Order: sequence, then C-alpha cells, then structure tokens
Amino acid sequence: MTVVALSGGVGGAKLALGLYRALPAGALRLIVNTGDDFDHLGLRICPDLDTALYTLGDLESPEQGWGRRDETWTMMRVTQSLGGETWFRLGDADTALHVYRTQRLRAGDRLTSVIADLAHRFGVEAAILPMTDDQVATRVATDEGELAFQEYFVRRRCEPVLQAIRFDGADRARPTPDVVAALSDPALEAIVLCPSNPYLSIDPLLAIPELRAALEQRRVPLVALSPLIGRAAVKGPTAKIMAELGVESSAAAIAAHYAGLIDALVVDTVDAADAARLPIPTFSTQTLMKTLDDRLRLAQFMLACVRKLSR
Amino acid sequence: MTVVALSGGVGGAKLALGLYRALPAGALRLIVNTGDDFDHLGLRICPDLDTALYTLGDLESPEQGWGRRDETWTMMRVTQSLGGETWFRLGDADTALHVYRTQRLRAGDRLTSVIADLAHRFGVEAAILPMTDDQVATRVATDEGELAFQEYFVRRRCEPVLQAIRFDGADRARPTPDVVAALSDPALEAIVLCPSNPYLSIDPLLAIPELRAALEQRRVPLVALSPLIGRAAVKGPTAKIMAELGVESSAAAIAAHYAGLIDALVVDTVDAADAARLPIPTFSTQTLMKTLDDRLRLAQFMLACVRKLSR
Repeated sequence: MTVVALSGGVGGAKLALGLYRALPAGALRLIVNTGDDFDHLGLRICPDLDTALYTLGDLESPEQGWGRRDETWTMMRVTQSLGGETWFRLGDADTALHVYRTQRLRAGDRLTSVIADLAHRFGVEAAILPMTDDQVATRVATDEGELAFQEYFVRRRCEPVLQAIRFDGADRARPTPDVVAALSDPALEAIVLCPSNPYLSIDPLLAIPELRAALEQRRVPLVALSPLIGRAAVKGPTAKIMAELGVESSAAAIAAHYAGLIDALVVDTVDAADAARLPIPTFSTQTLMKTLDDRLRLAQFMLACVRKLSR
Repeated sequence: MTVVALSGGVGGAKLALGLYRALPAGALRLIVNTGDDFDHLGLRICPDLDTALYTLGDLESPEQGWGRRDETWTMMRVTQSLGGETWFRLGDADTALHVYRTQRLRAGDRLTSVIADLAHRFGVEAAILPMTDDQVATRVATDEGELAFQEYFVRRRCEPVLQAIRFDGADRARPTPDVVAALSDPALEAIVLCPSNPYLSIDPLLAIPELRAALEQRRVPLVALSPLIGRAAVKGPTAKIMAELGVESSAAAIAAHYAGLIDALVVDTVDAADAARLPIPTFSTQTLMKTLDDRLRLAQFMLACVRKLSR
C-alpha cells in the first residue's frame, strides 16, 4: 500500500511528516513543488525539497520554521562582509547541501537522483520526488512589476500586492518518470493534497499538463486538507494572497480552486458549517499542527477519510 | 617608489607580509601564482591568492598555517555526512569567499578584479595580482602517474615520487595588464622573489612567456630569498622534491635554478659559506620567519640588499 502526497514547503511538510509516521516505512511518495527553486550565490537552492528532506530526516529547525537545526552562520556573516547578498539566509550546514547538489546537477545528474541520494543519507524511508527535473520558475505579477518568486516571498516578504502568478516553463515541463510511476502504481491507495499555499505551492504542480492529467485520471481518492482555519491562514500569506486575487478566503474558495480535482476536503472544525454547504464530501477536525502528535493524528484522520471514500 | 614581489603560498606570503609592513601603504605589488587554482565541490579555489589575502588582511590562521582564523567547519562536517569530498578542507568563512569568487567569475568578471575587490574589503593596501586571468594548471608526473597539483600536494601529501612538473596552459597564458603595468612602472625600485617553492610555486609564473620576458627585461634589481636553511626546507616539500628531481638541495642549486633571472640571492647564515662560491652576489642573514618581527626585519634586509645592488 502506498500513498502519494503533494506538497509545497513548511505547512505541507508538517502533514507530510504526519503521513510519514502514520504509514509503513517506504509507503509514502511525496511529490514536491520545485517552482520556488532558484540560483542564488551561484548555488542551486530548492527550498521546498529541502524542507521535505529536513522535516522527514528529523533535521528541521522548529524555532526558525525553515532550515536546519544546530545551524551555524559563518558563511553568511563573511558573505555580508564581502558585500554579497544575504537576504536569503544560507546556514553553513544548509550550504553544504546546496554545494553538493549544485555540483551534481552541473555534472549532469537528475535533480531526482540527487534528492533520492540525500534522502537516503538522511535516513528518510519515503520517496521525496521533485515534481519535475525540468526548470519551472514561479513568477508573480505585483503592483511593483513582475518578481521572481524568492524576491517576492523572502526578500520582499510578500509585501507587494499580488496581481497574478505564472509558472514559467510549466507548460513544457514533464513530470519525472518517478512521479508518473508513483501515481500509476497499482499499490497506490490514496492521494493527499497537503495544506500548502494553493496558489504558490500546489498550482505549480497542477500547471504541468501531464502531472495534472495523471492526477485527474487517478483511480484512488484524492483528499485535500484546507490551509485555512477560520478564514485565516495558519502561517504564511495564503489569506493575503486570496484577498489580493479577489477570492474570499474560505473553505468554499479552496474547494472551488481544486474543483474537478479533489474528492473531498478536510477543514478545521471552525469551518465545518461553511464546508457543509460544499458540493463535495467534507470532513472536519482540529487541523492546527503544533506538535508531532498533532501531525500524526491529522495524517491518520486524512487516511481515515480516504477509507470512507473508498468504501 | 614601488616594489614587486613574486610569491606562491604560505612561505612566500610570510616575506610578502614583511614587505607589506616595511613599505609605505600602496607600494607593494604582489604577483601571485595561480597554477594551484582548481575547481573543487563546484567552487573555484585559489589557494595562493587566498593565502596572500588572508595574510596581508591579517586574517590568517597561525595555528593551521593555512586558511582563516576563527574558522568554523560545519560545511565540511555536513559535506562528509553527504559522502562529499573532504580531503581539501574548506572552512565556512573560507567557503563564503569561494562562493563569492565563483559567482563573480561565472558572471564574467576577471579574477584580477575579484581579488582586487576582496583585498579592498579586507583593508589590504597592496596590489594582490594573479599572475594571469587565464587558466594555468600545475600538474605533476609521479611514480603513480600524472596528478593534478592539489591531488598531489594536499590529497597525497607529496608522497608520490615526483618525476616532472608541467604548467598546463602556461605557454598560451598572458600576464594580466596589471602585472605588466606593475613590472613596467617607472616608480618600480625592486623585484623580490619570495621563498616559495621554486619548482611548484615560482616556476608557474616563469612559465608564462611574457611574464618571464618582462622579468628578464627589468631595469631594477631582482633579489631572491632562498627557501632553504642548511639544505633543508623550512616547511613543505622543497628539499624532497629537489632530491626526487636529482638536484642537490643547496643554495647553489637555487641560484642555478634562477640563473639569468636573479641579480642576487639572500641565504641563511648557515648557508653563507656555500653561497660565497656562487657567481652572483649573495647576502646572508637569519632567514627563519617565526614572528611578525622576523618577517619585517627580513623584508628590510632584502630591501637593503636591493639598495646595495642599485648603487
């Protein structure tokens, strides 16, 4: 029995960790957004993949919410003294991974292979799969002009007013054979959409035509967890972005966004009344994930929903 | 009044620091070997240039004899955990410099410009000049086959028996305009050959035809400091290499190696009797440089020798 989860960064990785702990070793295949990937200081950085690696590898920094535990910052301090860019903070341990990846990609290795080897090194018994080995770059049109994703997200802290989002290269990108195999595996029992930002983190996956088609042609339930609690995002700019895009930040809007794709939506108990009016099955539970137990319990709840749908 | 010094790595940088402190600000132009430069972990590493930067910038590590003071080693520790190469140790602060340089070189900047900017950042009031912006790679033929320089020098600790040395690309390389200008500057008063390894560290400079010609056509004295004390090298493999190349490790052999190029040789007092028989002027003093005072005093001695030759 295998489960595919689709995830972006930190928020999605929380549920992914719950699923990883809830499922037998090797059962989880996590397909991860690479639209945030970029070249910085000459290094190839893959924020969402690294968050998945660090989170499932039990290396993440709970204080920062990103990066690694027990990190040191010498490289960044010296980079600052040299007049280099420091708005995207790279710890020394994190840098080792970027240096390793950049070198292997330049040598011609697939991103998928590099991430698989890193996952193996970190003792992760799940497949962490880049959505594509091709380059897809999320770009946002704002009231200050078009910005590369990390310029908008990290450097400008999502302050510019967002007008539109596009995924440069997505129309020509292909899902990796590993992604296709995970979605067509006869042992597949469920697909879970993690509570990542639908617009910035999940849409890049759906913008790859073959990946979207594979999801639509699935033979197993696809259940999404809403990233909203009481119309606010737990963390990050989801609600702000929805407002700027003229969408009300509600479970209904999330369901509408994923219409035709998801079989059911899991919402927080505070949104249960709203969700009851939706045209698809909904389930409600407490969705705030503060502790590892929260993540495990919520993952088990998601899997229970899938079983109800499968009956 | 300006002085040009030619230098390789650690041994040469000691005298270079003495000259830097002995001369007025801005008077020293240090032309540095780049034959040791190599790509490692996808980063461009320039060991001799960096030794010059760290030494003149008062950032060097006196304990290690290479790299920076107050260094941390997180990047290397994680690189090891990823199965990456760790035989060439890169500290986190050092890595910041390599990342910065690699990014600028990839963007098309000249190595000379990058080093000039780093020297400025480090507050160095001397010109630190790569011998060339072209690629020259020192390669050594050994009883174990031909090795890239750092493979031989660092990874194999000079253990393979050396048979020959070549400087790949030197015949096509050109000295930089900055190097040419330093050597043709009307204010130039002396050229000092630092006590670097003649075969591995100084010969790469001399292998560049235009650079050798410019040195030979100088109008100012060129004085070398012997790297040997009592027929042994102070540090490093000079004596071992001389033995393997079938050359006796003596002041006479150093003088013969630089025949036609140097006007005088400075040797240690223990080698004064040997040196007295040489066909060029020789001067003797204590040449072991343990303290900063040793370096300053020896630099002043070298400059005094130049003045005696100029009279």
